[in-house]
This record gives sequence, C-alpha cells and structure tokens, in this order.
Amino acid sequence: MGISLGPNQYGKAEVRLVTVRRAGGVHHLRDLTVSSALRGDLSATHLTGDNSAVLATDTQKNTVYAFAKQQDVGEIEDFALRLGQHFVGTQEKITGARISVEEQEWDRITVDGAPHDHSFSRSGGERRTTTVTVYADRAWVVSGVDGLVVLKSTGSEFHGYPKDEYTTLVETDDRILATAVTARWRYEGFTGIDWAKSHREIRRTLLETFATKHSLSLQQTLYAMGEAVLQARPEVAEIRFSLPNKHHFLVDLSPFGLENHNEVFYAADRPYGLIEGTVVRDEAEEPGPAWTDAVL
Amino acid sequence: MGISLGPNQYGKAEVRLVTVRRAGGVHHLRDLTVSSALRGDLSATHLTGDNSAVLATDTQKNTVYAFAKQQDVGEIEDFALRLGQHFVGTQEKITGARISVEEQEWDRITVDGAPHDHSFSRSGGERRTTTVTVYADRAWVVSGVDGLVVLKSTGSEFHGYPKDEYTTLVETDDRILATAVTARWRYEGFTGIDWAKSHREIRRTLLETFATKHSLSLQQTLYAMGEAVLQARPEVAEIRFSLPNKHHFLVDLSPFGLENHNEVFYAADRPYGLIEGTVVRDEAEEPGPAWTDAVL
Amino acid sequence: MGISLGPNQYGKAEVRLVTVRRAGGVHHLRDLTVSSALRGDLSATHLTGDNSAVLATDTQKNTVYAFAKQQDVGEIEDFALRLGQHFVGTQEKITGARISVEEQEWDRITVDGAPHDHSFSRSGGERRTTTVTVYADRAWVVSGVDGLVVLKSTGSEFHGYPKDEYTTLVETDDRILATAVTARWRYEGFTGIDWAKSHREIRRTLLETFATKHSLSLQQTLYAMGEAVLQARPEVAEIRFSLPNKHHFLVDLSPFGLENHNEVFYAADRPYGLIEGTVVRDEAEEPGPAWTDAVL
Amino acid sequence: MGISLGPNQYGKAEVRLVTVRRAGGVHHLRDLTVSSALRGDLSATHLTGDNSAVLATDTQKNTVYAFAKQQDVGEIEDFALRLGQHFVGTQEKITGARISVEEQEWDRITVDGAPHDHSFSRSGGERRTTTVTVYADRAWVVSGVDGLVVLKSTGSEFHGYPKDEYTTLVETDDRILATAVTARWRYEGFTGIDWAKSHREIRRTLLETFATKHSLSLQQTLYAMGEAVLQARPEVAEIRFSLPNKHHFLVDLSPFGLENHNEVFYAADRPYGLIEGTVVRDEAEEPGPAWTDAVL
Repeated sequence: MGISLGPNQYGKAEVRLVTVRRAGGVHHLRDLTVSSALRGDLSATHLTGDNSAVLATDTQKNTVYAFAKQQDVGEIEDFALRLGQHFVGTQEKITGARISVEEQEWDRITVDGAPHDHSFSRSGGERRTTTVTVYADRAWVVSGVDGLVVLKSTGSEFHGYPKDEYTTLVETDDRILATAVTARWRYEGFTGIDWAKSHREIRRTLLETFATKHSLSLQQTLYAMGEAVLQARPEVAEIRFSLPNKHHFLVDLSPFGLENHNEVFYAADRPYGLIEGTVVRDEAEEPGPAWTDAVL
Repeated sequence: MGISLGPNQYGKAEVRLVTVRRAGGVHHLRDLTVSSALRGDLSATHLTGDNSAVLATDTQKNTVYAFAKQQDVGEIEDFALRLGQHFVGTQEKITGARISVEEQEWDRITVDGAPHDHSFSRSGGERRTTTVTVYADRAWVVSGVDGLVVLKSTGSEFHGYPKDEYTTLVETDDRILATAVTARWRYEGFTGIDWAKSHREIRRTLLETFATKHSLSLQQTLYAMGEAVLQARPEVAEIRFSLPNKHHFLVDLSPFGLENHNEVFYAADRPYGLIEGTVVRDEAEEPGPAWTDAVL
Repeated sequence: MGISLGPNQYGKAEVRLVTVRRAGGVHHLRDLTVSSALRGDLSATHLTGDNSAVLATDTQKNTVYAFAKQQDVGEIEDFALRLGQHFVGTQEKITGARISVEEQEWDRITVDGAPHDHSFSRSGGERRTTTVTVYADRAWVVSGVDGLVVLKSTGSEFHGYPKDEYTTLVETDDRILATAVTARWRYEGFTGIDWAKSHREIRRTLLETFATKHSLSLQQTLYAMGEAVLQARPEVAEIRFSLPNKHHFLVDLSPFGLENHNEVFYAADRPYGLIEGTVVRDEAEEPGPAWTDAVL
Repeated sequence: MGISLGPNQYGKAEVRLVTVRRAGGVHHLRDLTVSSALRGDLSATHLTGDNSAVLATDTQKNTVYAFAKQQDVGEIEDFALRLGQHFVGTQEKITGARISVEEQEWDRITVDGAPHDHSFSRSGGERRTTTVTVYADRAWVVSGVDGLVVLKSTGSEFHGYPKDEYTTLVETDDRILATAVTARWRYEGFTGIDWAKSHREIRRTLLETFATKHSLSLQQTLYAMGEAVLQARPEVAEIRFSLPNKHHFLVDLSPFGLENHNEVFYAADRPYGLIEGTVVRDEAEEPGPAWTDAVL
C-alpha cells in the first residue's frame, strides 16, 4: 500500500511591514501585511528532513524587508510580483511562489484645514489585497477588497422563495440589506495594467452598483456588481464574491402597543446568510493556478 | 464570621440597535450598541433568589428598542440619560443606572458625485462612546472615543531614561510614534451641553495635538492632548487616556549591506507599552460614581 | 462580449445548536455549530431575482433545529449527511449540498469525586469538525480537528537549509516546536464507518506521532503524522494539514551576563511560518467535490 | 484656571514568556503572559518630556525575561511579587508597581498510556491570573480565573421578577444556565499563603457550587459561589465576579408540529445578561489599592 506526498507549500505568513518615504518634508506611509508561500519539489524535507531545498521562512521575511528598502514598494501587485519572481528565479527546486499582500490605508490628519506632512490616522477596516502566483515564465494576479461593509436601508426585497414544512420566514418588499464585501478579481495577464486605477475604479463600481441596483435577492446584487465590474474593466477576467447577509431583523414592538415601520432593527451576529458566487467573462483565459490558494 | 454582599450591578450588555429615520426620501441611519446596568438594593436575589426587585435584563433590552421608536434617538448622551432616568424612576429598589452607548458611524455612498439617499458604507473602526450614571436627582456623563488609531512618522524622540542592568534600549531622536487612542472625558454637569459639538471639537483637538506636539515621550503627548482639550472645552472636567504604544521597530538591514534611514519598520503586536493617565481641571467638581464602571 | 455566472452556492452559516438528551436523571449535552450551503441551478435569482429555487437560509436554519429534535443528533457526520440528503432530496433545483458541523466538547464537572449529572465545563479550544458534500446518489465526508495546539520542548532541529544573501537564521539542533494543528481527512466512501472511533484514533495518532517523531523540519513532522494516520486507518483516503509554526524564540540574555540554555523563550505572534501539506493513499478514490469548499 | 496631572501609570503589557525547566529528561513547561505598570512621581515626563524617572518599558520586558532565568518562576503570585519589589526597590521615583500574570496550562501528551517527557498539548481556554500591587513595605494580591465556561442543563429557574409595560419574558422553572466565570479574589496579606493550593481549592469550590446550587437567579449562584469560597478559604478576604449570562433560548418548534421539552436550544451571542457582584468577609482588611487596576 503506497502513501505519497500530495500538494504542499510553505512560507512566512503575515509579515508586518510599514514604510516611510520622504519627499522633502512630506512623508508617505505604507502599511502592508505580506505572506509568502513557496512550491516545488519539497519531498526531501517531508520524507527525510533534508532541508537543502527549504529556503527558511525567516529568510523569506528578511527578503520582504530588504526588497522594501531596495526599491520603492509601489503598487502591491508589483511588489508581490517582484518578490515572487525573486524566489522562483533564485531557488532551483522552487517552481512556484504565491505572494499575498494586504494594504491598510492611512489618512493624513487635518491640521488647520490642511493635511499634515507626517501625521496620520488609520482609515476604516477595509483592506486592499492582492495574491500573485508566479511560475517560471508566467504569473497570475488576483486582487481584491476585504471588509467593505455596506448597507442599504431600502431598495431590497425578498419573496417568491419556496415554502416547505420548515419555512417560517415572512416575505418582504422592503428590508435592510447589509453585507461585508469580500471580492477577488482575476486579471487577464500580469503586465501593462494600472493596478491603482483598476482597484479604484472597481471599488467605485462595486459601491455604486450596490447602492443603485434594486435588489430582489443578495444573489442578484452579487451578480449585478460582478457584471458591472466586467463591463467597465476589460482587464478583469473574472470576479468572485463572498457576501455574508448581515441580517437586520425588524424588532416586534407590538407588545408595547407600538408600530415599527422599518424604523427599529436588531443587528444579529449569528447565524448569517452566506452568498458566494463568481461572475466570469466568457472568453476569459483559463485561471490556471490563480485561485489555488491554500492546501486547506 | 460574617460574609456580606458587596458592590454589585446587573444588566443587559451589547444590545445591537440600528434605526432608520426618513426625511422625505432621505434616510438617516444610526448604529448603536447599548448596555445597561442597574444598581440598588439587590440583596434579596443574591441571598434567597427572590427576584421581586430584578427587572429582567430581557425587559431592559425591550426598553432600549421601545425608546428608540417612541422618540428620535438623538445624541447618544441624551438617549442614555433618558434610559437611565426611566429605570431609576420606575423601579423602586433601583437607585442607580449606568447606561453605555457606543456609536458606529456610516458614510453615505457617493453615486455620480453625490451622497446617496439610502445607501451607506461603514466608516472606520473608531467608535464614539458615552457612559452615563443616573441617580435619583443627579447624573454624570463620561463620553469618549475608542479605536482612534494614529501614527506620526517623525517628531517623536525617546531618551534620557534611566539605564539599569537590564536596559538594552537605544536612545533615539527620531522614531515612529503610534497609538490607538482610548479617551474618556467627564463633563461638568449633565444638562445644557451640545454633545455633538463637544465630541466633534474634542476629537479635532486630540488629532491636532497628536500631530503637532513634538513628543519626547508618549506620556508628554498624552498630557498635551488632555491639556489642550481642557483649555478648549470648559464643559470638560477631566479626561483620561489609555494609550498603547504600538511599537514600530526599525528593521536591521545591515546584514544585507543596506542602511535603514527610518524607512523600513516592523509593526509589532506584543508586547506593547501601555501609557495611562488623567488630566484634570483643578476646580472640577468631584467625580462621584462617574468612573466606577464595573465591579471587575 | 458575454458575461456568465460561474460557480456559486449559498446557505446559512454558523447556526448555533445546543441539545440536551436525558437518560434518566443523566443529561447528555451536545454543542454544535452548523453551516449549510446549497448548489444547483441558481441562475434565476442571480440574473433576475426570481427566487423560486432559493430555499431561504432561514428555512435551512429551521431545518437544522427541527432535525435535531426529530432524531438524536448522533455523530456529526451522520447529522450532516441527513441534512444534506434532505436538501438535495426535496429541492428540485438543488443538486448539491455542503454541510459543515463543528463540535465543541464539554466535560462533566466533578463533584465529590464523581461526574455530575447535568453540570458541565467547557473543554479546551479544540473542535471536532466535519464537512460533507451530498449529491443525488453520492456523498463525500471530510472530517477533522481544529485548534489542537501542541508543543515539544526538545526533539526538534532545523538546519541544512540554503543560505542566500538574505539569510540570517542560525541553525539549531534543539528548538521548541509548536503548532496549532488544523487537520482534515477524507474518508473512502460515506457508509459503514465508525465516525467516533475513527476520530478518536486519528486524534490519538496525531498526538503520539507529534510527540515521538524526532523532527528535522515541521514538514517532516507533518508528513509523519499523515503517514501514521493512513497506515493505521484504512478508511482514510487522504489527510491535509495547515500547521502554523508558532515560533518560540530564545531570549538573548547575554547583555545581562546570563546564559540561556533553552530555558527562557519569547512566544511570538506574527509573522509565523505556515506549513501546508497533503498525504494521500496512492490507490485512493478520486476526491471529486470533497474539497471544493467555498467559492473564495 | 489650573490643569493638573491626575492618576497615571505606565508599563509593558503582555510580555509572552515560556520557560522550560529540566529535571533529568523530564521537561516542565510554563506559559505566562506578564504585564507591568509603574506608578510614582511621573510628572516630569508628562509635563516636559524629562524621562529621568521613566524606566523604559523595554527594560521592564527585559527584567521579566532575566528574572525568569535567575530563579525558577514558581507560583505566579511569587513571580509577580519579586518583579514588583524589584521595580519599587530600585527606582527612586517609582512608589508602586502593579504586576499581572496570566498562566496558560499545558497537559502532557499521553503516549502508550504514559505522560510524555517533553511533549504537551494546550489545555482549554481557562487561565489562572494574578495581579499584585507592591508599595514600599506592603503588597496586595488579587488572584483569579478567566474563561472558566460552565453550563447546567437543569436546576435553574427564573421567575418572580417585576413585570412592567416592556416585559415580555416568560417565567420558567427549568432553563439552561451558562456563564464564563471571571473571578478575582483578594487575599488577606501577601505572605505565608500556599498560592497553588488556594487556587486549586477555590477553583474546585466554584465548580462544585455552580453544579450543586439550585439556582433561582444567576445572582444567587454568584453569591453562593462567593460565600462557599469565603467559608472554605480563610486566606481570602473578598471575591468578585463578572458573569455573563450566556443565553440558551429554547427553539420554538411548534410551527413544525414538534414539541420542545428543553431539548433543542439556540446559543445566542449578543446581547447577554451581565451579572457583577462582590462577596466580602465582614472583618476583612481594607483593600487599599488592590483593585485600582487601570486608569481607564
């Protein structure tokens, strides 16, 4: 009976990197969390503990810091590509690298009506993300947003669903719809793309579509957001969403002789609906390993 | 040997309340988390399980929701005062109520350059807070901010500290200073105060002082922020801070032949410095029970 | 230019279910968190908001609770299979269901040396998990453990890794090795398996192998644990691991004139190594959709 | 108008310390999280940034590690007292030190039926804690437990509470009672106490009382637990509790034609009841600064 090593990778997760770049007296701050994972012929370390192909995760961390000094970080996609190409290009047994970067934005503090040179306050919980997969002569880029929490207080209905013996939910033509958008979009190719502009425009499209699309289900909203992104951004091959339905239940005030005309809500923690879906351009190139993120 | 009941209180924690108020087609959203704690002669339930003085925490929750319908929530301080006065005024054995409210802000989503009527995205992780303590004929109001994360990339030094046998820290005249401001300020009295304006101005003062005060220690920054608030806002009797020193350590790049002129930092999680302090107006009224928040 | 709906699913996440079964005066407690996700022809709701195939997530939640009453929950694998088969069997457009269950154990409180009939304290942070995927005539079962935190204070080395220009790590022949085991194993088939025994024996094998395998790398430990499970349990086709290397760094006490013979360690939070890998039986059946958990 | 510095303290929070002590081939593991806070005349740093009295928090961290090497850590109370006495005894302007230690337990992994020499798995989420306050010639010790999660599936009632216009809760003579015990007990004096035995016996008393006391309210259970501890342990002056009422609501299965005889429950996250209380020995010495933990 044979037993073998299957898919595997290893690396350093969540390297916290903050950089300051000075332009005269004006400081530019970047706040990144970088994870690297390397793939290749790693059977020796698994089977015998021979580490001759295992670039230490400590070294991977050092590389992140050194690279941040040697060249301006730039867009997170470019930084991730540089790191991935370095690992694949310098480690004989490493055939693939997967680099994930999460960026936290900071705003300049306003003093006397003007943005301060070197003092910042952290923007919200939203993060811009990228995960690039680098092989010898090819790379795939999947960028996204995490923690973009949105809510519309009307313009959302939910009805027409099947009723079985376990159904108690009442149909509604006016409810709160709220979610924390996790979106990931796969780019066509990995060169010649204005990453910053693409991110900015996709984010804007997501928000505008969420706001203006009259919703009969969160699935419909998901598809509309994806379709709008693909229509507006030819550089995007595919977009995927994970959308928790953050339920806001109408509080029953009738025991107190009060009517509740969609005014007072209870924001629930658990359970929550979870809507996941993909919107894809028909002629998009194959995703290859772009989405095969983790072993688990 | 006698054993007695000492200080105690009970209530409902973290009631999640979201309200929508309509002004024509424009919706106004509020997102609050409300906690109540009642005090008084509660020995019967502790000693014998006689609950005749124990207004159920479920009832306290219901009251929060009903009050949100019966009158516009208004400023969180006013909402908390109304709730506290209700509990103290209607429950014979309850002599004190402590109501805490935390507010999460939401921004309107911009569509075609204009703020949308009923679609919102959540602002950052910062929360506006208040805790009011209501007794029969008196109340105390302590308001604050949580999670106001700030960083300055220069204008901060740290040196001149004692060196003992366990000291290895190197003195610096230029470091990153970062913290997550938790501030609580106690108001003089509880009537006639423009809560919204006071909060807005105190927040502005905290940010501006953090940005502009050249810092020789986080303690000095703390005091400067508190002093500036007290100088600017006569309605504030006292302000307290809890300021974690969120260390950003310079990465040693010398093993790679690189110099690091305050450009590349490692943002550490733990341990962290923790600076706590109070700035108080000399002739301020006594705090009474304003700060005695919890039994533990 | 065509745009289409790609892979998608939806359901209710994290339904918290606690059951009490009475056997005479002895109570048996179960504490489960159940998530369901349904797949099938869901294009109508995405494209037009037609919900006629969308069994409400609220109904899915109700079904979990009703099923828990109608029949003893039993092993989490059986409960998940029953739920999945129900959804696939009763909803015409639903061709696949994915049910995940996480179980939290509770211990009986000891009173006068004996286990109490109806009072419990929660065991550690470890959870037993299962995710079953049910299609019309077939099912796949992947079970596992989460949060099994282990540490060995010797019997672990790390050396022989490549040194490049960014390497500063010092080789060691004696270090602390610590990780939080997340393991998932895929069963051959889905019937005739003693789920409880299998879980218990696999868990024991993981712990014993971690303890006794002399480790030259966490990868080697991973493989050894997987191999031992496959050797001992013929019902397992494959096992996957995600193992964070929870670094315990030796504190440099030399500035204080002290030597540190692997006695005093600093347990770091971030970054951490992350070792992921699969061990598979050569003649194992194909995994099919067993692992395709989420869209993101 | 004068403005002054009020109560303040500073220190290093959450120093993660793991130690290994060897007795022959048998390793003994300790896993502590240590926080220190120093008090005294710290006005200079606050007002002018003069740090001559500010022992750096980095030095405090180093001291924790050095002390762990110089002498076996021992009971956490003794370790905290040694650290506090060191800071107060060596820093002229520091008149008080507050040292908190949290201990995470680890179990030995069982191999072939016997406890392994040097391999461990982490016990549950419960932590043993202590906070000692050291002044020149006196110390106070407050120890405790955190995260002791308990549940009883019967033996709990709740009725007889006042009904007002906002009351909808239905009385019950049989409910689940569950809580996560946070307890802190203040010792009489700080010498001559068997800390380990005291902790072990108090913990046992808390569990047994929770299990066996028939409960008419969580307040009654709180008081019973405190009273039992004070009766059993003369070294304890006072005990305080913070007990969240972790609601387990009976699921209404009647829409599905099912009865629910306290069999199927929904474990809610928020809101939760929060019961806080103190049980104190009448002739106990004054607490002094024992409880004045933090400025906020």
